[in-house]
Amino acid sequence: MKARKDRNLTAQQEHRRIKLVTEYRGTRYAGWQYQDNALTVQAALEKALSELLKRPVKLIGCSRTDAGVHALNHVSHFNGACPVPLDKLPLALIPFLPSDIAVKEAIEVNETFHARFSAKGKSYFYQVWNKPYRSALLSPYTYHEPRDLDLGAMQEACKHFIGTHDFAGFMATGSQAKTTVRTIYDLHIEIPQDGLIQIRIHGDAFLYNMVRIIAGTLLYVGLGKINASEIEAIIASKDRKKAGKTLEAKGLFLERVYY
Amino acid sequence: MKARKDRNLTAQQEHRRIKLVTEYRGTRYAGWQYQDNALTVQAALEKALSELLKRPVKLIGCSRTDAGVHALNHVSHFNGACPVPLDKLPLALIPFLPSDIAVKEAIEVNETFHARFSAKGKSYFYQVWNKPYRSALLSPYTYHEPRDLDLGAMQEACKHFIGTHDFAGFMATGSQAKTTVRTIYDLHIEIPQDGLIQIRIHGDAFLYNMVRIIAGTLLYVGLGKINASEIEAIIASKDRKKAGKTLEAKGLFLERVYY
Repeated sequence: MKARKDRNLTAQQEHRRIKLVTEYRGTRYAGWQYQDNALTVQAALEKALSELLKRPVKLIGCSRTDAGVHALNHVSHFNGACPVPLDKLPLALIPFLPSDIAVKEAIEVNETFHARFSAKGKSYFYQVWNKPYRSALLSPYTYHEPRDLDLGAMQEACKHFIGTHDFAGFMATGSQAKTTVRTIYDLHIEIPQDGLIQIRIHGDAFLYNMVRIIAGTLLYVGLGKINASEIEAIIASKDRKKAGKTLEAKGLFLERVYY
Repeated sequence: MKARKDRNLTAQQEHRRIKLVTEYRGTRYAGWQYQDNALTVQAALEKALSELLKRPVKLIGCSRTDAGVHALNHVSHFNGACPVPLDKLPLALIPFLPSDIAVKEAIEVNETFHARFSAKGKSYFYQVWNKPYRSALLSPYTYHEPRDLDLGAMQEACKHFIGTHDFAGFMATGSQAKTTVRTIYDLHIEIPQDGLIQIRIHGDAFLYNMVRIIAGTLLYVGLGKINASEIEAIIASKDRKKAGKTLEAKGLFLERVYY
């Protein structure tokens, strides 16, 4: 009788699925996703979990993030037993993780949950430091634009991106997306502190480099190189050359994944 | 006549005194002050200024800061001609400076101004990250305390530090201060974002490691190891062993120098 119970318990634990919410500073990493011969967040986190749980752990992430991009709440999941109580997992992982990766939360989820395929949307923000001097403290987290920006024009331009459009012109060349149609639910500018501009975006999904190209296009609007009223035509052209430049990865943050 | 004017102009420029306000991330540095065989902020900034101005520049800083301590508005001055317009100096220095040092402002001051001797007071803040997980983004700028802190007790303890006291017990051993009497004008706790605790202090001057020892003592109050009512006796004892531990340099920021 007791053996039976234990077997059931083990079987149950083996089918557990754990969702992780992770914060990371992307500076040192070639992105989230595992790559041979490159430092990735996935490899570092799988190594830490495997060492703590004393078994191989394979993670499924919500999305690749590009090299150098940061995340506040990246989501991933893994299967199988976790002898460490889940509310203690963030603290227990600290000695196994580098200081630029932190697991913020671990919760048990239904087996139908999939970090990537269950995602209904994501939000990102892009940070621009807009002072004549470069911020020494925020330079790992901001793109520096010393020239004056017309924030009203940028805010106005944001409105033209919202909605469902073919964003073929806002995608790095060489990507293999099946469709380039995406929906942007919200795009707006915030100023959390003097000199710091956050371009905040929420959409169903994003093409390769899409957020950084939108940020670069809004920067061109702020500098007067593109007029806010031209945005619709630029999207319709599907021509990468008509949009602004791809801003540096270090200003980009994955903020939240919606399920 | 023209030669005379030029000479006068040159003499005038040679007697100019320029005040610099500098932000830096202290992580890589052995503090502000020049040392043989160590990377210092002063040496990096003097090198950048000398390269830009094409002449040797010697800086006088408001204070040493310890290895690893950050600064938002460190003040220094130098003498002599500056052919670059002062309002353009922050931008002009960017190519000559590493990304963790930024000159925010350069203004001409009277020759009676001295970055160190004219200082009437300084303010610092110390940052504690108080969540079970370590913040990946803020880890270079925070001390991590995962245990619950009694913020009310810490706030209460702050009051007992304010005023003029002999802080001999709040000084690293080996320092050679002539007097250990200092005046604290203000000391209080702020929570700028969920999980981030700032211990903010303003005083006339500080002994070696004094802010980090006060922060460590307040942390012990938050953890219940020291009672707020014991602070006066701890100060009066002048015994370093009665105060809390010296918290890590990476949580400390020089915020402002008062003249």
